[in-house]
Amino acid sequence: MSARSSVAVAGVGTSRFGRQPERDLLGLAWEAVHEAFVDADVDGVDAVWVGTVFAPAGVAQRVLRAMGITGVPVVTVENACASGTTAFAEAHEAVRTGRYGRVLALGVEQMSTAFAGAITPEATDPEGRAGLALPALYAMSAARYLHVGAATSEQLAAVSVKNHAHAVHNPRAQYSGRYSVEEVLASRMIADPLTVLQCCPTSDGAAAAILTPASGSAGEVVVRGVALRSGTPWNQDSPHVWGYDIVRDTAELAVTEAGLDAVTDVDVVEVHDAFTIGEIVTTEALGLVPPGDGGRAAATGTTALGGSHPVNPSGGLLSRGHPLGATGLAQIAEITWQLRRGCGSRQVEGARLGLVETMGGGVSVLDGNACVVTVLESR
Amino acid sequence: MSARSSVAVAGVGTSRFGRQPERDLLGLAWEAVHEAFVDADVDGVDAVWVGTVFAPAGVAQRVLRAMGITGVPVVTVENACASGTTAFAEAHEAVRTGRYGRVLALGVEQMSTAFAGAITPEATDPEGRAGLALPALYAMSAARYLHVGAATSEQLAAVSVKNHAHAVHNPRAQYSGRYSVEEVLASRMIADPLTVLQCCPTSDGAAAAILTPASGSAGEVVVRGVALRSGTPWNQDSPHVWGYDIVRDTAELAVTEAGLDAVTDVDVVEVHDAFTIGEIVTTEALGLVPPGDGGRAAATGTTALGGSHPVNPSGGLLSRGHPLGATGLAQIAEITWQLRRGCGSRQVEGARLGLVETMGGGVSVLDGNACVVTVLESR
Repeated sequence: MSARSSVAVAGVGTSRFGRQPERDLLGLAWEAVHEAFVDADVDGVDAVWVGTVFAPAGVAQRVLRAMGITGVPVVTVENACASGTTAFAEAHEAVRTGRYGRVLALGVEQMSTAFAGAITPEATDPEGRAGLALPALYAMSAARYLHVGAATSEQLAAVSVKNHAHAVHNPRAQYSGRYSVEEVLASRMIADPLTVLQCCPTSDGAAAAILTPASGSAGEVVVRGVALRSGTPWNQDSPHVWGYDIVRDTAELAVTEAGLDAVTDVDVVEVHDAFTIGEIVTTEALGLVPPGDGGRAAATGTTALGGSHPVNPSGGLLSRGHPLGATGLAQIAEITWQLRRGCGSRQVEGARLGLVETMGGGVSVLDGNACVVTVLESR
Repeated sequence: MSARSSVAVAGVGTSRFGRQPERDLLGLAWEAVHEAFVDADVDGVDAVWVGTVFAPAGVAQRVLRAMGITGVPVVTVENACASGTTAFAEAHEAVRTGRYGRVLALGVEQMSTAFAGAITPEATDPEGRAGLALPALYAMSAARYLHVGAATSEQLAAVSVKNHAHAVHNPRAQYSGRYSVEEVLASRMIADPLTVLQCCPTSDGAAAAILTPASGSAGEVVVRGVALRSGTPWNQDSPHVWGYDIVRDTAELAVTEAGLDAVTDVDVVEVHDAFTIGEIVTTEALGLVPPGDGGRAAATGTTALGGSHPVNPSGGLLSRGHPLGATGLAQIAEITWQLRRGCGSRQVEGARLGLVETMGGGVSVLDGNACVVTVLESR
């Protein structure tokens, strides 16, 4: 057991994810935090980290006051798509070092009221303004995989088929369904070769986790490793597509800290499948499957529920949805539920070790991006 | 020497502060970080915390990439007006616990391109939308002080006179001047009784600090205590005006951690004088002067350069300016320069112990607000 197992995930909660423009940040956050408090059987916390990207300044304090949480240190963090797991990493560090006893990590985002479609690049984001918005960037990675024969269109689509099918068993997911590869490929083209069913939807939601010192009780979910990194700007001369290197490097740190022999020892994984190609690249970068084998793994069921390395049993970002600040903590919640064996028909049998990976690209997608990888274990 | 003296402020830097709409966040940040790197005599850092309130998501990564800083963990934090000192507190904690060796805390804000005047309340900020924007809130505190005889209009104005006079010696300050009390009182009314010379201006700027493990060398500036708190919503039945309690409570934590007998042992102080009444309330809440004596202290020179408890030798927010995310780190820079005895004609003679206080109110000013208090010492 690693020294890192001193911190437990005592409770988790999420709102329903979906396009919910009629709701507000307070209502979404309340839903997640209330569930986490009930789950952890606590009525207060000593500090709060809030992850959000587009919520207005000060919203954390307003949300928390509305829930009756005041007078404790509150820090809002932004780290692109990894904002939620950055809040988790910071909360974990605070408990691990004894800075605070019981800490809430909350992620919340309402994308539907902020953007009509893909995230609009900022004026200071030259790549984004030049057309390299996130769907286009992922499409370039996908095109590269197709070009060098590292994946086929059908394998890309298989990720969407798999994750939408997983989400059939997740009542909080935004979308779910039993699609065929053909249906995925025939859906509306967003950024060639990525069709709409291969892109995460516009989502609103919140997710929360409460971290405490581990009690040592049986069945407790503990944190074995957390790594937070930023990447270097991607270089087109790299043998890898954008995002591969930072995921590999961050995972190595987390896996070493967790004292695992290999990532393949992990029973269940949630990764950042903002686009289908993202899951393929990530499973390879993590070392869960060999390089160039990510697409095949999705198509043949290796990474499906019932396969040897199930990935995104929740449905992932593609199906559960992707409210930026909330995503990482929803992944943490899913793995926590999996390790408690409470996931019903989407349960990974015998899950004892789980891993969460979140990777964000700033808004300028080629900038030094952010990645957080966490290893959780049930005792 | 406290256990907290294990962390040193190895270098500081700031841009010029002022209304600089023709510049951008990258240029402002570069100026501050470059100076801090040269000051600390380093060419890299192991992690970065960035404090900003209104900068677009991902700006930290773009700023840092433009400066050649990539591949290290970056966390952007928002904590209203205390965002800069929140970044400092988090960077300090990371060095103190050994999480990272050398950490950059950067604050940056460009207010001139975001707002025409006072900060516009968010739609989710009922108090602000009902008229309780920040100038109005501070005006209520000032009116209360006048009503109960805890200060006079002339004493309020004396804070502005003092801080503008201090700023005459600070070439980076946005405004400075030798005003009379009558001139301050006769300036344009913003929120009765606060005239424009009693309100911080709209400012753009950046400030940075590099924290490292203390080396123990003579003259080194070390951190003796840092406290970060949020407040409870203000209650009109309180005997104190808004902000008093959180400043008092946060200062008590920092002073205890620093092992000081009393705040009055501190030689030089930078406080959050966003409005003149703010400095008066804060000097009382800190315990630097007795309750009800803050106005008199400003008017009689107690808190002026040359007085027994000099406050805001830089000119404070009123004169140096108040780019939200940058403010706290500019305060840290000023106290660091003071403790190194490098402030020329605004130097507090023999300064050895310094204190920084920053208090922000979220954007919803009555919400659980944020305060950071830091005690620095030169060996």
